[in-house]
Amino acid sequence: MNHIVHIACSDAKGLVANITSILFKHGVNIEEMREYVDRQLSNFFMRLELSGEINHDVIQQELLSSLPANASLKISLKEPKNIIVLATKEYHCLSELLLKHHFGELNASIKCVIANHENLGDLTSKFGIPFFYVNHHNKSKEVFEKEIMEIVKAHSPDYLVLAKFMRILSPEFVSSFNDKIVNIHHSFLPAFVGANPYRQAFERGVKMIGATAHFVNNNLDEGPIITQKIVPVDHSFTVESMISAGHDVERQTLIDALKLVFDDRVFVEGNKTVVFA
Amino acid sequence: MNHIVHIACSDAKGLVANITSILFKHGVNIEEMREYVDRQLSNFFMRLELSGEINHDVIQQELLSSLPANASLKISLKEPKNIIVLATKEYHCLSELLLKHHFGELNASIKCVIANHENLGDLTSKFGIPFFYVNHHNKSKEVFEKEIMEIVKAHSPDYLVLAKFMRILSPEFVSSFNDKIVNIHHSFLPAFVGANPYRQAFERGVKMIGATAHFVNNNLDEGPIITQKIVPVDHSFTVESMISAGHDVERQTLIDALKLVFDDRVFVEGNKTVVFA
Amino acid sequence: MNHIVHIACSDAKGLVANITSILFKHGVNIEEMREYVDRQLSNFFMRLELSGEINHDVIQQELLSSLPANASLKISLKEPKNIIVLATKEYHCLSELLLKHHFGELNASIKCVIANHENLGDLTSKFGIPFFYVNHHNKSKEVFEKEIMEIVKAHSPDYLVLAKFMRILSPEFVSSFNDKIVNIHHSFLPAFVGANPYRQAFERGVKMIGATAHFVNNNLDEGPIITQKIVPVDHSFTVESMISAGHDVERQTLIDALKLVFDDRVFVEGNKTVVFA
Amino acid sequence: MNHIVHIACSDAKGLVANITSILFKHGVNIEEMREYVDRQLSNFFMRLELSGEINHDVIQQELLSSLPANASLKISLKEPKNIIVLATKEYHCLSELLLKHHFGELNASIKCVIANHENLGDLTSKFGIPFFYVNHHNKSKEVFEKEIMEIVKAHSPDYLVLAKFMRILSPEFVSSFNDKIVNIHHSFLPAFVGANPYRQAFERGVKMIGATAHFVNNNLDEGPIITQKIVPVDHSFTVESMISAGHDVERQTLIDALKLVFDDRVFVEGNKTVVFA
Repeated sequence: MNHIVHIACSDAKGLVANITSILFKHGVNIEEMREYVDRQLSNFFMRLELSGEINHDVIQQELLSSLPANASLKISLKEPKNIIVLATKEYHCLSELLLKHHFGELNASIKCVIANHENLGDLTSKFGIPFFYVNHHNKSKEVFEKEIMEIVKAHSPDYLVLAKFMRILSPEFVSSFNDKIVNIHHSFLPAFVGANPYRQAFERGVKMIGATAHFVNNNLDEGPIITQKIVPVDHSFTVESMISAGHDVERQTLIDALKLVFDDRVFVEGNKTVVFA
Repeated sequence: MNHIVHIACSDAKGLVANITSILFKHGVNIEEMREYVDRQLSNFFMRLELSGEINHDVIQQELLSSLPANASLKISLKEPKNIIVLATKEYHCLSELLLKHHFGELNASIKCVIANHENLGDLTSKFGIPFFYVNHHNKSKEVFEKEIMEIVKAHSPDYLVLAKFMRILSPEFVSSFNDKIVNIHHSFLPAFVGANPYRQAFERGVKMIGATAHFVNNNLDEGPIITQKIVPVDHSFTVESMISAGHDVERQTLIDALKLVFDDRVFVEGNKTVVFA
Repeated sequence: MNHIVHIACSDAKGLVANITSILFKHGVNIEEMREYVDRQLSNFFMRLELSGEINHDVIQQELLSSLPANASLKISLKEPKNIIVLATKEYHCLSELLLKHHFGELNASIKCVIANHENLGDLTSKFGIPFFYVNHHNKSKEVFEKEIMEIVKAHSPDYLVLAKFMRILSPEFVSSFNDKIVNIHHSFLPAFVGANPYRQAFERGVKMIGATAHFVNNNLDEGPIITQKIVPVDHSFTVESMISAGHDVERQTLIDALKLVFDDRVFVEGNKTVVFA
Repeated sequence: MNHIVHIACSDAKGLVANITSILFKHGVNIEEMREYVDRQLSNFFMRLELSGEINHDVIQQELLSSLPANASLKISLKEPKNIIVLATKEYHCLSELLLKHHFGELNASIKCVIANHENLGDLTSKFGIPFFYVNHHNKSKEVFEKEIMEIVKAHSPDYLVLAKFMRILSPEFVSSFNDKIVNIHHSFLPAFVGANPYRQAFERGVKMIGATAHFVNNNLDEGPIITQKIVPVDHSFTVESMISAGHDVERQTLIDALKLVFDDRVFVEGNKTVVFA
């Protein structure tokens, strides 16, 4: 099995030489390498895919000692991530995840699905995935999120995927999963932030509608963007036909983003992403 | 030469039968027909392209008498429009118009170019088009626009094309050319309204940049959208490389919109357009 | 429920006036109308969507009497089509159909799934659709197709959808379902006709891969094209990652084509289609 | 001014470490680095952009001594390429090059334009570029190409750009400019190889037309593909309107390819390209 090395730090002279020399010394094969330097902010990003026998701790120590003090370094086996999917009522993003998972094409293991409506339980069960219904009615957000959090903690997921989960998560909840929550927003952000983006798009008379997959931070619809896709529309589209056309582009945008995230190809830099596609 | 009939009115029973029966009675050939009914607002739109001998006044009278009272009806020869191009300093949209005009592919006759900077005079002159430099320095907007208006009036254009004209036109000016001014905005509206959209896009970290061609109304960047196009970007783009990539998509979006407008395929309905592409 | 009128005939003067006058006389509402005249071949195509009380036989007779002798005319209720899906081993197109069917978004009723491999039976059963396994081993094509034909005939479908059915159908079989079999081919036809298009694409070093939905006629991969879509690739793609990227574009191309076909928006003209999208 | 290092060789252990260590030892800054290993063929490709004081000969020697014997290595200043443009009668690709050159956005210096028709001489002269008319009538291909070759040799260009040059070049001519001739073909190769691709596309009834920029080798339309783009069409397109729509996508495809080629981001590997976009 291959290994993934993820490095983010201040830029400095000789970084690539130092890193690759350490790896070479240990007889490691570099199967794939991508690096990027943000010249404006002087940040360095590198993703390596390695093969061969690797002692993570030893490599980690040696690499860290040759990197700037602010370095973030992760070495891990290249293996499927554990995820939890949160949904509400719409099936199209959840079904995409369930199907690709079922046929071994998701590069992730779905531990469970949590939804604040019951209607997707049947679909989820068809694919043998545990489904937790957490009603949000007559509950404070605090209580609602506490119930979700308990289920989440019991599964220790690498990522939470909001597959059209239509509740806004509190800053407290979000901060527990920094850069670990991926959301699909049904518009081409930053156009049409907030509720009913398709109605907003319809009323503005746009000629394209879009979808945006992004990490969730504390500000609604403001997190780092991972992928965006669009689909053309014209005057004959109603709000309803926009929603329908939007479903297909939403699920594709989400799945494209997750493919990158689960393969450790996405770095967060402030409110942006560096994506080694 | 063919004829174009443009009809917009309230929807009513038998409209298509009435219109086409009148045309048939006069022995006119329908070369092309498109119609659309906005069910929500109960508006009817039709574009016809006709061949044969046609007395515009007679047809106009007969059609009007069979249409609802609020009908807007235009019958015209299918011939190139007369246009004036307004520019500032950027060449890429103006050159697109000049070139396609020079080689007979614009479907319009450029009467002159008006710019508030001098640098595009040389390019314009290469193609034998009159160039008017109207400086905006040390002038009120009123005086500036009066100078432009005098040149415009002398040429009685069908359309004004803002080919990256970076001055905001006053409501007074705009209202003289209702649905007759086409602008190219360098973002995917309504994202990044206003100044420096590429800087805004860069700072937001979007993964696509776009361009929007629209009719100009009194509210900046708020007019009816005609066409929109996008081009993918990634983390490696600076503001400058976004601007450069944007140039190509801006000119393509503008030229695609003008092709539709000059061929009378665009109707304005409130703040939206109906486009028979 | 609305009605759909489908007309294809030689072009003639007054066709639109005649057709719409007949409809008006009967008090029918035209909800939507699209027409197209192929000037080169002098063919006329029209699709109407009507509301109101309609006697199909009466309208059919009156319309036919006013149309050229070679007219093909169909009047039908706008209702979901009955279809049978044929598959082999790949799940991605079949699952798209099953899911959209399950959630009422397919505009068709899947009568059954027929496959020449067993592996998709489980998936199909999850959604409560009958699954018929028709083995092709140790059988002549004649016998194999006879077995399929018996199942098909028992369900009298409007359309057969080949959702990655990898067997070539005989001219005899195809001719029984003229313009009624929709196939998804995994390349941008006419590039890469025949077997292993992704391997062909890989070996040619193309920068985009595509998919083509088309009606099946007697010549392999030569039928009238309905929709085509592409997805960019680069040098880092293997045959396997092209296949994976191709899956998503294949199912989207197929579903987009079926949306048009099931809504009676596609006419076949020789080896081409006229599509009122 | 920055420097570009281009390396292509067999893959071997420690290549990146060796290369970057040599550069680090000489105090060179790596501004940008991209590498790719073709696992199937075991080929290694690297592009580096360096800043700082660099002695090309010294670095070249040290790098070569640490690379496999079959290494191709080029170190050059990052500066505009010298090019010659060959054209026939169509203006749209040539004008794109002339305009971007005129406004300093081509990243190349156009030494001259050679055409086998006279009509583009006027356009070329507007931009102050020498124009050579080389008639192909009543001449053997040998003589025709000899005349072109003399003009070319007098300018020692880095690249020849075939901007809709509609004559097929002989293997002798092509072999003198290995991987140095970029052509724009007006179809989505390998669909519609040869003459009149738009007519072929029209007759096949495709729903998208495309363009392909590629290096020219000895087999017509068979060289390594650099970029491909498409534009949607429908049944209403004639051959003529396909040609017109195709013009815009052809020039964009060509200019996108040249941007990559002139920035040394394209490697040729057999009949394919590796593109560090």
